[in-house]
Formats: sequence, structure tokens, C-alpha cells
Amino acid sequence: MTDEILPIRKIADKLGIADEYLDYYGPHTAKLKLSLMDQTKPGQRGKLIMVTAITPTSYGEGKTVVSIGLAQALDRLGKKVIATLREPSLGPVFGVKGGATGGGKSRVLPSEKINLHFTGDFHAITTAHNLLAAAIDSHIHNGNELRFDVDSIFWPRAMDMNDRALRHIVVGLGGKINGVPRETGFVITAASEIMAIMGLATSREDLRKRINSIVVGFNLEGQIIRASDLNVTGSMMVLLNDAIQPNLVQTTEHTPAFVHTGPFANIAHGTSSVISQKIAFNMADYIVNESGFGADLGAEKFFDIVMTQTGHKPAAAVLIATVRALASHGGVPGDLSVEAVKRGLVNLATHLENMKKFKVPVVAALNRFTTDTPEQLNVIKQFCEESGVESALVDVFEKGGEGAIELAEKIMRIADPVGAETASPIYQLTDSLETKIEKVAKEIYGAGIVYIEAGARKKLKKFTDLGYGQLPHLHGENPIVPVGQSQASGCTEGIHTDRQ
Amino acid sequence: MTDEILPIRKIADKLGIADEYLDYYGPHTAKLKLSLMDQTKPGQRGKLIMVTAITPTSYGEGKTVVSIGLAQALDRLGKKVIATLREPSLGPVFGVKGGATGGGKSRVLPSEKINLHFTGDFHAITTAHNLLAAAIDSHIHNGNELRFDVDSIFWPRAMDMNDRALRHIVVGLGGKINGVPRETGFVITAASEIMAIMGLATSREDLRKRINSIVVGFNLEGQIIRASDLNVTGSMMVLLNDAIQPNLVQTTEHTPAFVHTGPFANIAHGTSSVISQKIAFNMADYIVNESGFGADLGAEKFFDIVMTQTGHKPAAAVLIATVRALASHGGVPGDLSVEAVKRGLVNLATHLENMKKFKVPVVAALNRFTTDTPEQLNVIKQFCEESGVESALVDVFEKGGEGAIELAEKIMRIADPVGAETASPIYQLTDSLETKIEKVAKEIYGAGIVYIEAGARKKLKKFTDLGYGQLPHLHGENPIVPVGQSQASGCTEGIHTDRQ
Amino acid sequence: MTDEILPIRKIADKLGIADEYLDYYGPHTAKLKLSLMDQTKPGQRGKLIMVTAITPTSYGEGKTVVSIGLAQALDRLGKKVIATLREPSLGPVFGVKGGATGGGKSRVLPSEKINLHFTGDFHAITTAHNLLAAAIDSHIHNGNELRFDVDSIFWPRAMDMNDRALRHIVVGLGGKINGVPRETGFVITAASEIMAIMGLATSREDLRKRINSIVVGFNLEGQIIRASDLNVTGSMMVLLNDAIQPNLVQTTEHTPAFVHTGPFANIAHGTSSVISQKIAFNMADYIVNESGFGADLGAEKFFDIVMTQTGHKPAAAVLIATVRALASHGGVPGDLSVEAVKRGLVNLATHLENMKKFKVPVVAALNRFTTDTPEQLNVIKQFCEESGVESALVDVFEKGGEGAIELAEKIMRIADPVGAETASPIYQLTDSLETKIEKVAKEIYGAGIVYIEAGARKKLKKFTDLGYGQLPHLHGENPIVPVGQSQASGCTEGIHTDRQ
Amino acid sequence: MTDEILPIRKIADKLGIADEYLDYYGPHTAKLKLSLMDQTKPGQRGKLIMVTAITPTSYGEGKTVVSIGLAQALDRLGKKVIATLREPSLGPVFGVKGGATGGGKSRVLPSEKINLHFTGDFHAITTAHNLLAAAIDSHIHNGNELRFDVDSIFWPRAMDMNDRALRHIVVGLGGKINGVPRETGFVITAASEIMAIMGLATSREDLRKRINSIVVGFNLEGQIIRASDLNVTGSMMVLLNDAIQPNLVQTTEHTPAFVHTGPFANIAHGTSSVISQKIAFNMADYIVNESGFGADLGAEKFFDIVMTQTGHKPAAAVLIATVRALASHGGVPGDLSVEAVKRGLVNLATHLENMKKFKVPVVAALNRFTTDTPEQLNVIKQFCEESGVESALVDVFEKGGEGAIELAEKIMRIADPVGAETASPIYQLTDSLETKIEKVAKEIYGAGIVYIEAGARKKLKKFTDLGYGQLPHLHGENPIVPVGQSQASGCTEGIHTDRQ
Repeated sequence: MTDEILPIRKIADKLGIADEYLDYYGPHTAKLKLSLMDQTKPGQRGKLIMVTAITPTSYGEGKTVVSIGLAQALDRLGKKVIATLREPSLGPVFGVKGGATGGGKSRVLPSEKINLHFTGDFHAITTAHNLLAAAIDSHIHNGNELRFDVDSIFWPRAMDMNDRALRHIVVGLGGKINGVPRETGFVITAASEIMAIMGLATSREDLRKRINSIVVGFNLEGQIIRASDLNVTGSMMVLLNDAIQPNLVQTTEHTPAFVHTGPFANIAHGTSSVISQKIAFNMADYIVNESGFGADLGAEKFFDIVMTQTGHKPAAAVLIATVRALASHGGVPGDLSVEAVKRGLVNLATHLENMKKFKVPVVAALNRFTTDTPEQLNVIKQFCEESGVESALVDVFEKGGEGAIELAEKIMRIADPVGAETASPIYQLTDSLETKIEKVAKEIYGAGIVYIEAGARKKLKKFTDLGYGQLPHLHGENPIVPVGQSQASGCTEGIHTDRQ
Repeated sequence: MTDEILPIRKIADKLGIADEYLDYYGPHTAKLKLSLMDQTKPGQRGKLIMVTAITPTSYGEGKTVVSIGLAQALDRLGKKVIATLREPSLGPVFGVKGGATGGGKSRVLPSEKINLHFTGDFHAITTAHNLLAAAIDSHIHNGNELRFDVDSIFWPRAMDMNDRALRHIVVGLGGKINGVPRETGFVITAASEIMAIMGLATSREDLRKRINSIVVGFNLEGQIIRASDLNVTGSMMVLLNDAIQPNLVQTTEHTPAFVHTGPFANIAHGTSSVISQKIAFNMADYIVNESGFGADLGAEKFFDIVMTQTGHKPAAAVLIATVRALASHGGVPGDLSVEAVKRGLVNLATHLENMKKFKVPVVAALNRFTTDTPEQLNVIKQFCEESGVESALVDVFEKGGEGAIELAEKIMRIADPVGAETASPIYQLTDSLETKIEKVAKEIYGAGIVYIEAGARKKLKKFTDLGYGQLPHLHGENPIVPVGQSQASGCTEGIHTDRQ
Repeated sequence: MTDEILPIRKIADKLGIADEYLDYYGPHTAKLKLSLMDQTKPGQRGKLIMVTAITPTSYGEGKTVVSIGLAQALDRLGKKVIATLREPSLGPVFGVKGGATGGGKSRVLPSEKINLHFTGDFHAITTAHNLLAAAIDSHIHNGNELRFDVDSIFWPRAMDMNDRALRHIVVGLGGKINGVPRETGFVITAASEIMAIMGLATSREDLRKRINSIVVGFNLEGQIIRASDLNVTGSMMVLLNDAIQPNLVQTTEHTPAFVHTGPFANIAHGTSSVISQKIAFNMADYIVNESGFGADLGAEKFFDIVMTQTGHKPAAAVLIATVRALASHGGVPGDLSVEAVKRGLVNLATHLENMKKFKVPVVAALNRFTTDTPEQLNVIKQFCEESGVESALVDVFEKGGEGAIELAEKIMRIADPVGAETASPIYQLTDSLETKIEKVAKEIYGAGIVYIEAGARKKLKKFTDLGYGQLPHLHGENPIVPVGQSQASGCTEGIHTDRQ
Repeated sequence: MTDEILPIRKIADKLGIADEYLDYYGPHTAKLKLSLMDQTKPGQRGKLIMVTAITPTSYGEGKTVVSIGLAQALDRLGKKVIATLREPSLGPVFGVKGGATGGGKSRVLPSEKINLHFTGDFHAITTAHNLLAAAIDSHIHNGNELRFDVDSIFWPRAMDMNDRALRHIVVGLGGKINGVPRETGFVITAASEIMAIMGLATSREDLRKRINSIVVGFNLEGQIIRASDLNVTGSMMVLLNDAIQPNLVQTTEHTPAFVHTGPFANIAHGTSSVISQKIAFNMADYIVNESGFGADLGAEKFFDIVMTQTGHKPAAAVLIATVRALASHGGVPGDLSVEAVKRGLVNLATHLENMKKFKVPVVAALNRFTTDTPEQLNVIKQFCEESGVESALVDVFEKGGEGAIELAEKIMRIADPVGAETASPIYQLTDSLETKIEKVAKEIYGAGIVYIEAGARKKLKKFTDLGYGQLPHLHGENPIVPVGQSQASGCTEGIHTDRQ
């Protein structure tokens, strides 16, 4: 595909970014210097449009392509707009078909570079992550002064690769020279805690604090050992020096896009970096931001974790649905009939209901595929009308920004005025961990009762006793507890609801 | 240190490289397009100066700094010159003190970037390496159609990190979902076979052939399984797309330097890439090329493996010695006396003797340190005179190119005229493996007799039967046999000489 | 302690066992030949008295000592009586204080031998168990013709030792010569499936069938692989040749005791061997048989699993309680007051209630300790009276059989006449697995509702599809599904009740 | 096979052993009490006949069958004789064809029992061995007060089973609850150090001392940790209580045989227990004792290790050869011709030469097979005559003791008078380890020079510094250094001779 691609300098011009704030990576990519964050001009803050979707199916719903298309449409309508997106993982590139850079006439360019090594951010995160891991084993090998309990180390290693054989391994074999044997594993880089905390960091100094406060394990007395105890934060910061800077690229219609960090939505917060969003707020009328997975997961995390960190509330949300995904939710595999779509509308209804709980105005975006029939599209449209929800048909893959004009106009109409945003999280930071779990389970996932087993309750108490009772945010500490494989699952293990 | 650093465009100008042959990576680095190799103009090929040293000690002898300083001196003397150097590994950066980018007034710039992620070459090699590893385990997990013998897989994983705990591991634990358990390990990226074959490749097509012919293991019938059987060469080539292009940087005196690939000298060939050398031959009067370790190891590999691959013979060699290293070879720890230096001269003598066997004219370079006394320097100088060997005092750390003028002039004097080089390898490609081993052991390492145990002999026969009898080069096949940890050592296991 | 111990020949005389049915193991132990089973004389079948207890505490309730004492008392009352007991595991011997051979004046002799290697039964079972395990790995190493899925092998190794480090291991490391790496573990011999099926076997032929039908794993197609596929049953039978024969010993009062097999009650059926019980039925008026753990676990398994296998119904049951155990169930650690005992009576009440469900007449036996006060004993006695349950104070540790005369007399009075036993199991063999689980959970453990998670339900369906729907007994097949560590827990994983 | 077998009491009668010294194990086996050792009567010590053989081949040479046959022949000739033999391992029973109890008309009875669990000695040794192993891991799990370096633990686990998958394992996986992960392995029980030291022990007290002084590993400071540090010797002694007593059985001709302990000859001393030999010396005219492997290995160890421990010198030796084994040494696989036998005689010659070095009179025993031809037998006989060596044809498989009358008569003729034995070891206990190695290598294995690599030399120095310089015997300490797999090989690793 030969896309007309402009020198990145021209894209920077659209946003009024001077050369002193840019580090060029070839002709079509630049990294933004963090000093750009301080360029806030009062009254110039943009409106944040959050893009989410119904429960994802194997068909895909097109969150990235619609986000890009919507940004292009707003651009066509004369607005200053920036799309803020996640960086794709190399891992799935060779397994699954793309999509992480959009598709058709709504893509970010240069797609191939973004999909491969790009500006090296993931490699830097992988290396910083593994430096900390190597420091742990090296420390144990050299006398273990910190008295690590080798069976209570949470910090895995990381690799930007789908490599199941590395998930659960024993390291340190081959005798004394190779250190002490222990069980551990690799996570994919997108699941690295470094990825999560870089995505949430608000400055270099904040990142340094977050790295220092990483809980890497317990000592033989059951006390916490932190990354700061291993004296590698300085080296890690050097390795992450460039990676913390957002990447500026362009869409196929030359709309500016910030592509930065790629935390998974299931075990982390699943959206673009707080730093890239904060810079974008300062220089655009509209910021179109994609969040991961369905609205129950990605949007909930956005409102409860990310929004409280950026300090900016979404002015409107887009909830994407597709005919095929709704038909799939109709419950009969392969049944794409109008009836199946009708049955699947319950999924859309639930997500729309949830959005109301976050108190954000929403437009349902019908992402059109060439195989969709008018009948199928009509039942969805009609349902939205009956539900009193705005909806718009989009066709950005085929038509680019033009295919989202209706959506853009509706979004502009319903978006709260700047400063009057009403969006609010589900739980309060001061709620106990049990309360937070209960609120999310009941409000978003529809649980009737929440039963926490004795073992899980004990864990929650331990987290609280250790000072993590106010997670996800705690006085500048990391909002994320250890994300080692076992831990990740450990967080919900033993918690049952009556709707699973 | 605030070095004056020029835009890389200006350095390219010195070599007459047009913009169409450059990919910029920020203002001070560019990657060279491989099409530049085809720009050969008859009669314009440069003289290759090989830089080697006496047996290394913990003091360091300064091969990189002298190479850079010599290039700067030749530049000052009006010659068109390029230094061809290896890329440093991230691994040792955090463990050992630098030096990989030279030092003082003889460095390559931008040092910090080169020492860190640079243009991402090592990350790309690591990723390509691990993609192949993941493909092997994934193949076994998915039914093992190739009938891999899980205990006969040679392909390790790689990481650019000093992480001893990963040397010997068990992967695939945790049940069926994580694949089949087996023993394996990580090598440092500099020891990856991908690093070795990229360093020896002469073109993209050659690299593809070399990747395809990698021996990854045996099947249950004892037959070879190659990377080509796993259908990942295409993806690996995409990952290595940029990494195969040499990096253009500058020295502290703006002399052009090609910094490309970083294979270890102990288990691979230990010098800059064949591609970077081939391009340099086409555009400079002098190419100053560093080889790894001492002259017995690094220089031997250069003459026997690299030279036969580039097709260019060194016109002269520099053999570096230092007062402290010679005193250290004097045998009494801590004794830096003139007597100790005298006793250590036997090491210098042996390496000079070896260089004669390669039939290349040599200048002994005395790399001066501020702590050296005139008496110490004199005994070395006098020894060289008595041995009929040219010598020169160099002080490039303190003085830059000016500190190597004497060396440069002597090199220019003794260097063979282009096309009349007499350098020759120790063994012939058609020699049997046993003969090659014997020649190297006797000629270079001074062995009296070479005794090959039955087990080792059996292995050599197996290699020969499998078609690897003409290693290191075999009709475009990889010159390197499997470099898995065990294999690497396996190559000399069971071979004894009477001088160990 | 110097106990007067009679030649075992004299004990055999009391039972009228001729020499041809005995294999002597030193002067005080003999193994019974299985041909003795065929010596049934019509009308001569004995009454089975089952000994069980309230929920066990760390104090111990004395099931073994009371069983022995009761047998001695019946002996004193002129009855022909045999105590049928389990063989103790070596494992706990060195960890926990004894008790497995009774105590004080109610012990089986020679205690030290019984507690150590005894007649080698456990060693034989361990060896047979491990022969099958070695056959599996050897089969895989030698080409794996059966196509074992190495991640779906259920057969662990066994050792008669408390050795936690062996619970989860990786075997087959060290290269090809040592076979294929895989995860597995050791169970203690008492938890070996061989122990369980030998305990349930009714003849050598039955044992052979049960060994043949052991499910050792799945092949790559997901089909069952059985021990019979490995052709080692013959060797295993040779190894178990003697171990299948019950051991005849004597109590401190020369009452005959059969001590044979030692399956755990938690993961197996927890009582003496079916063969030893069947022989005992033929030659005694009363058979006093101990079952493991509390009445909910050990007694339930006896009625549902063992009774249906022996074909003999208990004529009466003894439910043991102690002051200290009841006080411990009072809920306040360390509180041994009368009030605590009163509060703990709820435990006794529940078990008495359960016994009614099995439709067997019961006597509560108050096992007296020297520290018990009359007040404490009284509240228990009074409770039994009020509940309409017979009770008796026993003091067999201090007094031997004399200390259980009251208990013996009450048992003789309430025991059903031979042939008129009313005892019945909780579930029917033809019930579905789900129904069986539900009946046990509700009837015995007091569950209100039983919730079976999707994953657990899938497993139950799989078991049923594979032909194990009528467990524990199925047309002569093994009543026990794979007891590998993970499997054992897997059986109840994902099953929740509202009373945990 | 229905052998007439006598009550063991009758066999004891032949040796005049009173009932008080016997523990019966069924009708045909008894264990001897150690108090029997004190029954020495001056002037009554028997002559020791050592049975050894040429280098073993896969055909077998029949050391056991000839030992039994010779004992039977001496019995027929009116001598009081005891055969002292090793107990067979269960391990090889199911893999290889028997022979460990002799064959044909020269067997020990009851063969099946001896070949299976016998009197439980191996099970007891296995259990004691594993108790110590479990104690090590348990100690580390519970805080590791002794500061074990987990990578420097030499004590493996043991199992009486050929199970290659257990040779190299990782234990302690599955998290904290299962202890600390580490690499270890199982040895077969015959290779257990407990087997070796029980075989060499001279009393219960001596065994206790030997167990206490077992080196189980090093602590983090590199200091030795012994079994005594773990406080399990008492429990181990209890487990070994019966196993230390020799087993009395009979041959097919009712000749008494002591069958006790079964240490391998390659990694231990390979002969029957010192205690069984010491008791036999006291009560027979002739003791026929088998030693393992060929005369270079088994006989050397007997003279250098066992003889110095029992204090009794062999009065004569039998060196067994067979036509098939000699033909096999002829070098051409499958060639059984007379010429092949002739070529193979060099093996016989070397072993005869070696026996001279031990200064013991020798008779070559030609163990006849039905397939042997007169020509084949003649060349051997003739060779012996020419060499001045007595030889005798034996046919004990077919004929029992009658088939060894010639051998017995020749042995009786050449055997030294009691008290005048001239047998002597190759090295002195006061020789350094290097000297011992050199003497054995040169005298017995025909080495010209012995080259000890630096690493091996360092190890020998370490052993000496740790107080093991006078091995195999050192003032009541264990004569055997750690026999963990790695150690065993470690003992000769790095030692080269010019004849391998």
C-alpha cells in the first residue's frame, strides 16, 4: 500500500510544536520531549472523547480504526484533534492479524514501523524489566544480604514474544556457578509492571518513585523487599530515558496521533499513557482516546484508575458495536440472522446501562462491514432510538474520516462543555478493598451477592496491612500490586459472585 | 563531557554518501542502505589495517581507543579513512566499566546512545533469535510434526543481559497449556548465532540463506532439523530488516566510523560486520578494523574466517601492548617493575611470531598510560628494535589523533600496496576438521602433539558426515555450527594438547 | 516396656488356624494364606463392630486403643473376637508420636516391629508402585509407542516417607540418556493407589484386574492409557505376592488382631483390608474394625465404599468422644472448662445424628483420660441420656480389656443379630456422580445447596463418559480414580456448598 | 523348579550355631545375631578363597555360580565351608536375567525370595538413606540453621529400581510449602553410601560412627556438614537394626551361605559384608567369597579396601574365564572361533599378571558352557600350562559341586596355610592420594604416565586438607567419600593416563 505520508515536521506544525520539543526518528516519527507538558495555556484544554465497545468477540469490533476515523472526521470538521493510542505489542504481530494500527483508510503511519520495533519503547521496557530480575538473582547468588525468600519472589522476567514455554520455568540450574534454582516465569512485555507504571507515570520523577516502590518479593521474615533495595533504579531510568517520551505520528489523513505505551487491559489499565494524554489536553480541541477490551473492563478501568490519575474527565464516550459481534452474542455459533442480532442486543443494552453509571454522555457507533444488511443495521438503530441513545453509522475503513462525520457531529453536540464534565468513578479511593471489589462486581458485572473466601479475605487484609488499602492510588505509590503471573490471578482467586 | 558533535550529514559528506543511501536515526546517527555496496569503483579499494593485541589482562590494552586514534591520525594526515568497529553489548554495560566506545579524546559519538539501545540492532537480533526459539517449542506443543527429539535441541534463547540464572533452565512447566518441559538456556545476544551469521553475511539474500540453514536440532531419527523447516525465516528477516544495515557515526575528531554487529571473539569471529567492511573498502583509503581478544584468538579468526569471507586481505597489522599488561604477564601479581615487564616480553614475542605466520607486516603499538615510566617503555622499545619489528608509542586517550601520528606514518610505510597483499590463513578450507584443529593448535597455540579423544573424534566424523567437513565456509552455508552452550564447549571437549 | 508376648502359633490356635495356612515371620508374627478365605462355614459369620469417632483434634481420640481394648473386653467376656486394624505408615513415625499400635495396656504386639518395617508390606507396595512409574518413563524414553501425552500422566511415584521436597519435582533432566523431562511428584505410600486397591481387593485375581485397570494417563489423542498397556502387572503381582496376605499378631492380652494395609482416610477409604475382614468374618463371633478420621469421613466411606465391597454390614458402631476433644470443639483454644465441653457437644450430636442415617445402632464411648474431672464426664453422659443414646465410660489405656467391659456389654446388647443388619449406604451405586456428591454433602456434611462450577461439571461428565459414572464400584473395575496429587484435589475442586 | 530345601535350623546345625544367635524369617532363612562375632575360638580361623574373573562381557562369566559350586565341592570333600555372597538388587531383576543367586545346580535357596524383598535389608537401607535426604531438605525448609549451600549438597536419594528418569531431578517445586528448589537425583540402592558403609562396618557402633561422619554437603562458608549435624543417626540406626545382621541361607546342596549387603563394585567395594566375612572366619575351614566385576576392579578393591578392614588375607584366588568371554575379547564381534579365543587370551594373561602383584596363589577356573568345543577349551588350558598357572575345568551349572571337585582340590593344595598368607595391597594407607592413584593406574591398569589436570589436583588437595588424605581408611572414619553421582565421577574426572 503506498500511502502519502508527510514529513513529521508538518504534523508537528499542525499542533504548533517547536523543533526544540522533538527528537526525530527518521522522517515520519518523532518523540515528544516531556518539557512540552509545561506548556499549558489556561482555557485551552481539550475535550476528551473515550472510545470503548461492547464485549469483544473473535470478529473484532474496530476500536482502533473507529478512534482514528473519528479523529479524522473531527479534523475534517475543522477541529484541532489528536488521537491517543496504545503501541502494539510485537508478540501478537506474528500470531494474529494486525489491526493494532487501524485499517483501510483509517490507519496510523508508518504502520510497518509501528508494528515492529517502532522507536524501541517495548525493547527498552523489556530490558529495564529484566535488569531488575537479573539484579534479584544476582543478589541472591552473591550472599543474599536482603534475605530473599526464594519462594516469595513476585518479579518475573519479560519478553515481547508469545512464548508459552517461558510462562513457568525453573532458573538457576547447572550448579553453583549459575546461582540458586527457583521457579519463575516470563510475562509478555505488555504485561510488565514497568509497562503499567510508565503508562500511569506523570513525569520522570514520578516514574522513578514508582520503580523504587515496586514490591519484588518478601524476605524470610515476611517483610516486603522493594526495587529500591536493589540499587538498580538509576540504571533502569537510563534504559527508559527515551521510552517515557510519547511518539508523534500521523493518520492516513495526516491527523496527529500520539502512540505511547501498551499495557494490557485485563491485568493493567489498557489505554495510552497518562503523559501522552496530558500533553494532548494542552494542545487540541478534541482528544480521541481508545481504551481496551469491552466497556465493563476497559472503560471501568479508565474511569476508576486512569481518570483519577490524569485529572481529566471524558466529555463523551463512543460505544462501538458491530452487526457480527452482536449476532455472535446472540448465542448460536454461526447464526448471523436478524434474529441473532436482536438476541445479542442485550449485550449492547448492558454496556449502555453501565456507561450511565459513569455519568458520561454516550453515542453508539455502528461500525459497518460490507457484509452487513440494511435489516441487520436497522434493528440496532431502532433499538438505540427506543432506548433514547444517540447512534451513528460509521464506515471509516472504506471512507476514512468521511465515514465518521455523523458520529463526529453527534459527539460534538453531546460532549460536555470543557470544565463541566460530569463523569465519575464507581468507587472512592478511600473505600476499602472489599468495598471496591463489591461495587465493581455489583454495579458493572451485575453480581447479586459477592462471596469472598477466607483465603482471599486474608490476602486482602494483608494488602491493607502492608499499606495498600487505598489502591489503585496511594500517595504517589504504585497503583498496581505485583503483577507476576500468580499474583495477577491471585487478586480474584477465591472471590465468587452469583453471576460468573 | 561536552563533545562537539557534527550533524551526521556532514560526516556522510566526507565520504560522499548521498542522502538516498541514508536512513537517519536522530541528528547524529544514520544507517547505510545496502545498495551502497554496489557503488564499487575500480581502483578505489582501500587498505585494510587490522588492529590486534597481546594476550588481554584485566588491565585492558585499549584496542578500541587505539583503533579510533589511529583512524583519527590517518585522517589528520590527509587520508580518507573509516574505522570499522563492533557494537557494544548492553549486557556488560551495567557490570563492567565501558571502553567499548573508546575513551578520552579517541571515542565514537554519541557514546551514550551507542552504549545503550543505539539503533536497536541488538534488540532486533534478540527478538529474531527468540522468535525461532518460540517457534520450536510451539511446534512441539502443536503435535511435533517434525518429530523433534526434545533432548537434542541446540537452539537456546537469547537476552542482551548478564543473567547467570538464565544460563540453564527448564521451560514448559505448569502443565499441558505451557507446552512440553525441556532443558535449555539463554545466551547473551552477542553469543547468538544470529549475531554471528549477520556479521558474516554479505547481503540480505545471504543472511536469508544462512538463517534457513541454521541447525536447530535433531529429530527422533537423528536427522538434522533446520530453521527452514519451521517457516519463520520470513518473519525473522522482517525483524532484522534494519539491523543488517551498518551504522554511521563519528569519532571525537569527526572521522567517520562504521559501528556494526558485535559477535564475541571466543565463540564467534569477534569483529565488525563483513557488510560494513565491504562498504568501507569501496570509499576509503584506509580502513582501520579492530578484532577481538588477543592476536592468537581474534587475529587468527580474522585471517581464517573473516578474511576468506570479505575477500580483502589486511595490508598491515597493529599489535598493541601496554606496560601494565606486559608486567602482568611477568607472572608476579602486582609486580610492575621493569624486570616484570622484561619477563612479560615473551608474550609480545609470541604474538609477533604468530603475525609472521599470517604473512602480514606489523607495527607494535605501545599504548601509553600516564603511570608508565620511561624505563618501562624503553625496554619494550629496545626489544622491538632487537627483534627487527617496527614500534610506535601512542597516546590517543590524552591527545586524540595527534597521539598516533608516529604509528600512522609507520603503518602507511609498511602497508602492502593495494592488490599486493600477502596475508594468508593458517589452514585451507579443504583441510579436514582434524587437520584444521591441528594446524591452529600447533602453529598458533604452540602445541607439540594434539590428542583427540575417541568421543571427540566421533563428533568430528559426525560433523563431516552431516556435510560440515569444510567449515568454516561451505558453499554459502553457515560457517558456524550450532552455538548452543553445550555445543560451543562440545567443539573442543575431549581435545588435549601438551600445552594447556 | 516388657510385655509378655506369646508365640504366634498359640494365637493361631485360639482361632483354630492350622499351620498350612500360616507363613511365619519370626516368633510373633505370621501371614495368613488367602486359601483361608475359602474356609467359610455356614452360620458361623461374626458380627462386625465398627469403631469411629467425633471430629478429630490434635489431642487424639484413641480410636485404635479403644478398638483394641474393646476386642480385649469381648475376649474376656468369652467371645471369639478379632480386631482388624490398619498397618501404620513409616512416614509419620519419625515425625509424630505413635499411637498407631494403640497404647498402654491396649496395644498390638510386637509394637516396634509393626511400627517399622513389619512384614515389608509397605515396602512391597512402594516398590510395585514405582515399578509402574519407571515403566511409564522408560516407555516414553524408548520411543513412546503408546503416544503418552507427557503432560497428562497421573501416576506419581511413592515413598513411605514424609518428604515435602519430593511432592512436586521435574524428572528426566540431564539430557537424552535420562529420558524425557516432565513434572511429577511423590506421594506417601499410604496414599498410593496400590495401597487403596490392595485394601479393597477380594482376591489375588481381583487385585490383578484392579492393577490392570489403573488409569495412568492420556495419550496425545486424549484416550486413556491403562497399566495393562505397559505389561508390568505380572511383575507387580510378584512384588505384591506376600503383601496381599493379612498379618496375624496379638494384643497385650493375647487377643488376635489382623493388621493389614494402611490407606489414608482422606484420599482413600481409610480402614483395614477387605481380605482381612472377610477372613475374620469366617472365624470370630465379633470383629472389631477401626475406620479412619471422624464419623463423617471414615464411617461414610466405610458404609458407602467398603461395606458394599465386603458384603458385610456392621451390626453396631462405637462412636468415641473424649473430654478434651469436645472441649476443643467448644471453640476457645485452651479452654477445658465444663462450659467448653458443653459447647463442644454439638459435634458429638451431629455425628450421632449421622450414624442414624446409616441405620446402625450406636454406643458412645467416653475414652477417659486421667486429667478428666467427674463434672466434665457427667455433662457428656447426661447429654447422651437425654439424647436417648447408649454411652459407656472406657479406660483401656490404664486397665486394658477390663476398662471396656461396660462398652462391650452394651455393644453385645444392641448389636443386630447376624443376618438382620440394617446398615445401609447414603447413596446408590447407580446414582449419578452429581447425585452422589449431593447426597453426601447434604446428608453428612449438612450442606444446604451444592453448587458445581462449570469446570468441575465438565470433569464429572468426562469421568462418566469414560465409563466411571458408577464409581466407587464398577463391575470389578477400580473404585478409585487416579489419585495423583493434583487429581485427588481435582475431585472436589470447583464444588462449593453453603457450609464450608 | 522344585528344589529340596532343608529347614534353616538344619543348616545352622552344620555350623554349630545355637538358636539364641538366630532370628528366623520363615522356615528357610535366618538372620545371624552380631553377638556371634564374639564367639571366636583361637586356632579356628578359616581360609579365605577369593573368587574373581577376567574382564566381564555381556555373556557373563559366572562368578556367583562358580563360587557356590566351589563351596559345594569343598563341602563334598568334607570341609566345613561357607559361601559369602552379595544380596542382589531388585533393580536389575526386572530388567536383566537373573544369575545373582547362581544357576542350575549351584544356586542359593530360596532363590525367589532372595531375588525379591528377601529379609528387607535393601528396603531398610533405602529408607534410612532417604530419611537422611528428607532431613536435609526439611532442615533447609525450616530456616536452614546449618547454612547449607543448596548447590553443594552431595547426598542424593535412593531407590531400589532402575529408573533413569530419577537420575537428575529438580525437587522442592510448587512453592514455599514444598521447600526450596534444588537439583539432585536418585541413585540405585546398591550405590547408596549406606550400602557401602554397612558393608564395611565391623559392628553396630562402627556403623553409627560411619553414619555420623557422612559428608552430606558444604555450608555457605565452604565447611563440611556431616550427617551427625542433622540428628537423625538414631532413627537411621533403628531402621537398620535388622539389616546389619547377615542372612543365613543354603545352596542347592545344603552348603551354608551368608548373603549380606550388595554394594556395587564400580563405585563401592563390591563384595559381601565385612561382618558376614568376620563371622564366617570363625566357624568354617573355607570361606568362598565372591568379588565384583573383573580382577582389576573387584579384586583390587578387595585387597586394598576390604582386606585391610577385615584383617583377613585370602589364602588363594580363583580367576574365572569362559570360552565365550575370551572369544569376545578377541575383538571381532560374533567371532567365537578358536583363533578369536587365542587372541582374547591376552585378557586372561593380564589379570593373571595382576594377581601376582597381590601376592596370592591363583587357579584359573574354566567355567564350561555346553556350547564350548574341546578345541576352544584346549587352547585356554594349554595357555595356562605354558604360563605356569594351575587351571581347572568347572561345570557347576550342570553338575553342582561335583563339577568343581578338580578346582576345589587344586585350591586346597595351593592355599596358604592359615596365618601364613602373603597377600598384600597395592598401596599403603599412608600414601598420598596422588600416589595411590598412580600406583593403581600403573600397576593394575598398565598406565605409562598419569597426568592429573590442575582442577583434579586441586580437588585432591582439598580432600587432603579436609582430612581425607588417608582414604580409604582413616581412624574409624568412613573410607568412602561422598558417592553422589557427580562426586563419584568427580573422583577420576581430569585424571588421564596414556592407556584409556
